[in-house]
Amino acid sequence: MTTSTLAVRYTSARTLDTAPTESSPPGPGEVELAPAFVGICGTDLHIFHGDMDARVRTPAVLGHEMSGRIVRVGPDVEGWRPGNAVTVMPLRWDDTCPACRAGHRHICQHLDFIGIDSPGAMQQRWTVPASTLVRLPESVPLDRAALVEPTAVAVHDVGRARVQAGERVVVVGGGPVGILIALVARSAGADVRVVELSGHRRLLAEESGLTAWDPATDDVPELVREWTGDAGADVAFEVSGAAAGVDTAVEVLAVRGRLCLVAIHPRPRELNLHRFFWRELTLVGARLYDRADFERAVALVADGTVPADRLISKVVPLTEAPSAFEALEAGGDVMKILVDCSDAQGAIDEAQGAAV
Amino acid sequence: MTTSTLAVRYTSARTLDTAPTESSPPGPGEVELAPAFVGICGTDLHIFHGDMDARVRTPAVLGHEMSGRIVRVGPDVEGWRPGNAVTVMPLRWDDTCPACRAGHRHICQHLDFIGIDSPGAMQQRWTVPASTLVRLPESVPLDRAALVEPTAVAVHDVGRARVQAGERVVVVGGGPVGILIALVARSAGADVRVVELSGHRRLLAEESGLTAWDPATDDVPELVREWTGDAGADVAFEVSGAAAGVDTAVEVLAVRGRLCLVAIHPRPRELNLHRFFWRELTLVGARLYDRADFERAVALVADGTVPADRLISKVVPLTEAPSAFEALEAGGDVMKILVDCSDAQGAIDEAQGAAV
Ligand SMILES: NC(=O)c1ccc[n+]([C@@H]2O[C@H](COP(=O)([O-])OP(=O)(O)OC[C@H]3O[C@@H](n4cnc5c(N)ncnc54)[C@H](O)[C@@H]3O)[C@@H](O)[C@H]2O)c1
Ligand SMILES: NC(=O)c1ccc[n+]([C@@H]2O[C@H](COP(=O)([O-])OP(=O)(O)OC[C@H]3O[C@@H](n4cnc5c(N)ncnc54)[C@H](O)[C@@H]3O)[C@@H](O)[C@H]2O)c1
Ligand SMILES: [Zn+2]
Ligand SMILES: [Zn+2]
Repeated sequence: MTTSTLAVRYTSARTLDTAPTESSPPGPGEVELAPAFVGICGTDLHIFHGDMDARVRTPAVLGHEMSGRIVRVGPDVEGWRPGNAVTVMPLRWDDTCPACRAGHRHICQHLDFIGIDSPGAMQQRWTVPASTLVRLPESVPLDRAALVEPTAVAVHDVGRARVQAGERVVVVGGGPVGILIALVARSAGADVRVVELSGHRRLLAEESGLTAWDPATDDVPELVREWTGDAGADVAFEVSGAAAGVDTAVEVLAVRGRLCLVAIHPRPRELNLHRFFWRELTLVGARLYDRADFERAVALVADGTVPADRLISKVVPLTEAPSAFEALEAGGDVMKILVDCSDAQGAIDEAQGAAV
Repeated sequence: MTTSTLAVRYTSARTLDTAPTESSPPGPGEVELAPAFVGICGTDLHIFHGDMDARVRTPAVLGHEMSGRIVRVGPDVEGWRPGNAVTVMPLRWDDTCPACRAGHRHICQHLDFIGIDSPGAMQQRWTVPASTLVRLPESVPLDRAALVEPTAVAVHDVGRARVQAGERVVVVGGGPVGILIALVARSAGADVRVVELSGHRRLLAEESGLTAWDPATDDVPELVREWTGDAGADVAFEVSGAAAGVDTAVEVLAVRGRLCLVAIHPRPRELNLHRFFWRELTLVGARLYDRADFERAVALVADGTVPADRLISKVVPLTEAPSAFEALEAGGDVMKILVDCSDAQGAIDEAQGAAV
């Protein structure tokens, strides 16, 4: 049975539309999902800007931060059935390249990132390999569960930086990813400061129990020296994407401090290499996540470590996704916006009707 | 007894002289040495250029890569006596700053690097704290022993990069420090390639059994792909100090590769941060050494792992040190130049005479 559904598509720089697409029955090893909520992330905005046209094949269905339910299960899929609440780890690797063979499949040299390199979740039906599914407990509301993917990024990053209990951590950039890193680091026992330009986002951080500084008015390196008794921070996360953010992150670090680079800097940046030498600093690149990170993220959303309700600024229906992108781009007082793909329940009923 | 001796002094940009200085009896915890051979290193050249005038107090006696013998032993010094062959780990830390308290004394926030921040070894008598002494086996000729200090740098760097047996290592910059890193990495079981502009230095690397590439004519990233089956190198060392060298080191690395930054880059450099994110690369700053590195370095010079004779291009008498600096600055076919402070044997006789 082919189903006719609606999808949010990127067609060219600054242009999104919603258009009907057809969903065919899932093939062997695949499942068809009804996405419930899909977060709009910074990478989606980069695509929207036209910055990733070399990589994205248009029209491109966006979206990779999602929650939803299984509608149809393809042949040879074990352990899943229609109605199951799931999120998706949107990675497909080739299992043969040197990175995969060395055990780093999440950064496979030929990685297919579903939602960038192949169609994403911002549609009413989405077919993915069953291998990408991650089970959601029924206790987790699906809107909150849309934060599992960025939380998995944060879990991965805190792991890459080897944050230990008692360490002092500075997070530069308190957007959705930065604040999740701050929360995950705190739950690992670290003492955390957030550096963020937006007053709204600093307020959200403070409401989540974090201390937030404004780099425009606070002397951040001096505050760090006071806080750490002249030592500097053990770990800094660069999650701003800004040149000034990189400088702050380098400047606040203690001797042997670790800088975890999370943000995407499309062009080369000037880096104070002398300080890396002088203080024996370490820079660690962090990209995506693996299954263990995803499963930990589900637990952190489920147990409330991630205050998902506070971080979700707005939920818009699928048909209004294009204007939500424009609003996000314009900035303003937002953290995370979710797109409601809405008919999840209808889809389950339909699937169960079909199964009878 | 005050001894009148000769010293090589930096007085102002591009100006060295040799001048008599007075050596007083060593104080409590100190020893007076008769330096035998003192290597001229890149940092000495930086001082000579005038690049470090903010740090160096003129007139400044240079030199920190040395070998020699003890002449006089001050009060409260145990375990040392006149005639002992030694080298010096030229570091004095404060033991109180956060870096020291965290166990990183070699990068103390108030480190006194003897030979830069305080008078160095290029003189006929040199008084240092007994705590800086490192014993040399009598079997090691003193000229070779002048290479212990840069070898300790190499040991430290290979340790910071955690080079493992079987790993593929690219050393960018085959000057004295680079070639020592290559040799130490090879002795740790790594498969090593050296990238070096100078034909003379490439030849020296080849004569030491290393494979060396010319970045001006070889397509280094392509050679690395062929060598590693498209994976890239596990570790790269940046030891060139050049912007192009940084780029090469980043470009050759495999997914999860480690870049050990050894060279001094006085000004910020553009770095391809996107690749650090994309491949989850790590950058590790490395500075100086600790006592374990020094002791390992003595062993590597003693057992011939470091072919010191091949790396010493020339030995000049102390009075000719100023022209040796000019020759080194002009480039040409040299690796390491030693300054012969020469009267070591005379000094021992004198000391033993005094002891009778
Ligand atoms: N490593 C990964 O796998 C991964 C995954 C997801 C996102 N990302 C990247 O992480 C970055 C953050 O994502 P996001 O969704 O939170 O983006 P975002 O743009 O919403 O957040 C960035 C925040 O940094 C703040 N900022 C800008 N300049 C600053 C400065 N100088 N000092 C302090 N704060 C400053 C901004 O006000 C903003 O709130 C982006 O670059 C994104 O592409 C990486
Ligand atoms: N980390 C530390 O504690 C420490 C200790 C000693 C020296 N250093 C630094 O290490 C660096 C190397 O020291 P050195 O004494 O061997 O210096 P050097 O100047 O003799 O050697 C640098 C070499 O790099 C080569 N080179 C330049 N550009 C290149 C490029 N693009 N690709 C490949 N090779 C290139 C040069 O031909 C030269 O042979 C210097 O910057 C020095 O200050 C650091
Ligand atoms: Zn792969
Ligand atoms: Zn100290």
